[in-house]
Amino acid sequence: MSEKKPTAKVVHYADVPAAEFGDEAPGVSIRLLIDAEHDGAPVYVLRMIEVSPGCSTPDHRHPFEHENFVVEGTGEVVIEGECHKVAEGDVVFVPPDVQHTYRNTGEGTLRFLCGIPK
Amino acid sequence: MSEKKPTAKVVHYADVPAAEFGDEAPGVSIRLLIDAEHDGAPVYVLRMIEVSPGCSTPDHRHPFEHENFVVEGTGEVVIEGECHKVAEGDVVFVPPDVQHTYRNTGEGTLRFLCGIPK
Repeated sequence: MSEKKPTAKVVHYADVPAAEFGDEAPGVSIRLLIDAEHDGAPVYVLRMIEVSPGCSTPDHRHPFEHENFVVEGTGEVVIEGECHKVAEGDVVFVPPDVQHTYRNTGEGTLRFLCGIPK
Repeated sequence: MSEKKPTAKVVHYADVPAAEFGDEAPGVSIRLLIDAEHDGAPVYVLRMIEVSPGCSTPDHRHPFEHENFVVEGTGEVVIEGECHKVAEGDVVFVPPDVQHTYRNTGEGTLRFLCGIPK
């Protein structure tokens, strides 16, 4: 597949479609804010993850890192068995190959940015 | 210089020190939220840029892209001569080798995330 040429864009995150994770993580959705396919992102992809109250992202590990920023809501992230409370303005670095999951412990949506290598 | 091993971290952005840009961009500061030196970021670096009212980031271009997310405030970004208004929740992709500058047109701090390749 030929790669898209990097193209400037300004968009509100809420205008980018949200896709459900599905059975793997009920109540969790993802918006591809800047990606390789549509925007020609050369190095990494920026997504918005949204977690409904009481729901969790997959408890998994993978060979690439996450760089997260909590935009809204309250919850916790468990990284290799260690639980950290998170809220708006928190920055989270999840290294490659480390087990991790986010859980929404609040009343509203937990919303965080998640960058990964493309 | 040997690279730091990627290390998990959870921190509020305001607890990361802010450095002034200096003469190149008065009223602008930067926080290295996740970087290679301290955190072992493998692929890209996440920074928080803060612009005082009436001030601007350098009007420049460089061979790497920006992936931005506006956390707070109002302003405009000029990308290759085209001006876009921006506010909280806006996502901006600035491709490599494209002229760009942000200006704070509001009353409070304009604060946005800025990811670049490490």
